[in-house]
Amino acid sequence: MTGTDHTKLPPAGALATGPVVILVNPQMGENIGATARAMLNCGLVSLRIVNPRDGWPNERAEAMSAGALEMMPPVEVYATTAEAIADLHHVYATTARPRDMVKNVMTARAAATDMRARENEGQRIGLIFGAERSGLGNEDVAISGTVITIPLNPGFSSLNLGQAVLLVAHEWLSAGDGTPGVQMINNDSFPATQDSMTNLYQRLEDELQRTGFFRAPDMKPTVLRNLHAMLTRAEMTDQEVKTFHGIISALTGKKSGGAPE
Amino acid sequence: MTGTDHTKLPPAGALATGPVVILVNPQMGENIGATARAMLNCGLVSLRIVNPRDGWPNERAEAMSAGALEMMPPVEVYATTAEAIADLHHVYATTARPRDMVKNVMTARAAATDMRARENEGQRIGLIFGAERSGLGNEDVAISGTVITIPLNPGFSSLNLGQAVLLVAHEWLSAGDGTPGVQMINNDSFPATQDSMTNLYQRLEDELQRTGFFRAPDMKPTVLRNLHAMLTRAEMTDQEVKTFHGIISALTGKKSGGAPE
Repeated sequence: MTGTDHTKLPPAGALATGPVVILVNPQMGENIGATARAMLNCGLVSLRIVNPRDGWPNERAEAMSAGALEMMPPVEVYATTAEAIADLHHVYATTARPRDMVKNVMTARAAATDMRARENEGQRIGLIFGAERSGLGNEDVAISGTVITIPLNPGFSSLNLGQAVLLVAHEWLSAGDGTPGVQMINNDSFPATQDSMTNLYQRLEDELQRTGFFRAPDMKPTVLRNLHAMLTRAEMTDQEVKTFHGIISALTGKKSGGAPE
Repeated sequence: MTGTDHTKLPPAGALATGPVVILVNPQMGENIGATARAMLNCGLVSLRIVNPRDGWPNERAEAMSAGALEMMPPVEVYATTAEAIADLHHVYATTARPRDMVKNVMTARAAATDMRARENEGQRIGLIFGAERSGLGNEDVAISGTVITIPLNPGFSSLNLGQAVLLVAHEWLSAGDGTPGVQMINNDSFPATQDSMTNLYQRLEDELQRTGFFRAPDMKPTVLRNLHAMLTRAEMTDQEVKTFHGIISALTGKKSGGAPE
């Protein structure tokens, strides 16, 4: 058996824009616009629509896209799903219910990892979304390589089209995103409530006001804000708040229990 | 130094609903409704609003929530952010730009892991979102323990309020979600294009039609659909498609190159 022919692959640069989004039988122009906005938010720019109810272009889509449609390449319109996906190597169908078919089913997050792996191989991939109410037809699910289901509250799982596109597109973005997550340093102490922190801020401000700390009154809001930021960042425990109150008492010459022993 | 007092912790059952969402100075009722819908989609039910421009309740919010507001406990209204977060132990502020303050900054995904860890400790946590255009004020960011930034396309990063809440709430949901991701079996072969698969389906259908395979015409669409699902699931390579064509030729008595050697 001969090897796979890779000579038909597109150049790597053509893949920089991520998966193609295909809306099948979309109805409200607003939802097409919201889809475009969500796509561009997540760095996707290739939108294809199959048999849009109200034709194309659509003024309501333009308005709802918040400028995204103007920044993206022209939307491509097709008569059938098969034509819209003809040049793609792998297609993911987002649907709540795989219908009596044995199919690969992935969460949006797992699918995003799969998408990135395929793109790295040079595959062209697509994400199919159905109409707002009726969803995708059985035929469209049958010809999709993978079904994506978005984990949601089972008691209230209806998303509008733009929201569904946003969640899947954002998983794609996140799967390739290098932003450091930032780990918090944890220990076994328990943070004080916001209430006791507010009390501490107020007492400190009152004492500083009384003792003439704020020499430039117009800078007082900025000084206080930076003080709040610093003390909030400290994530004090209840005990540390008490300690801090003790420090203020000591510094102002008031009687206190002193430092913890 | 004495240990932390854990006797004031709420019972575990009170934490089942996840973080509280706090909208500061929300303007359009539609955005409050979209927030409620996105929250309930992701299993969050505690919504607090600070100083809403158009008061509360709000008919447009009800309409936009798609029933979510009716299913959630009553929305709580506060005059200030400090009052709205007074009983919480840790607050996350979602904002695009930390302003001249040294703060802990996390991606929404890292923050979701942090939220789950805090909830497991018994902490009550909150997510603060600012007004649509102006965002959160410096004061509100200063008193938040963590700043959440959502990774987005830097060239087009404006989300509406409901979308921002959806992305953060869905990260919280996903951080506790046990849905298996499903791994694909990968190998070094390259899948056929949809075009060549469509050609294969059509040829197979034509040959099966000609040879009387479809004995019950009313079942033909279902049989074809299941056949499509099965063959799509196979993720054939280009070579396998050629092999399959050869099989059809052989079975129908036509001359072909035979099986690969």
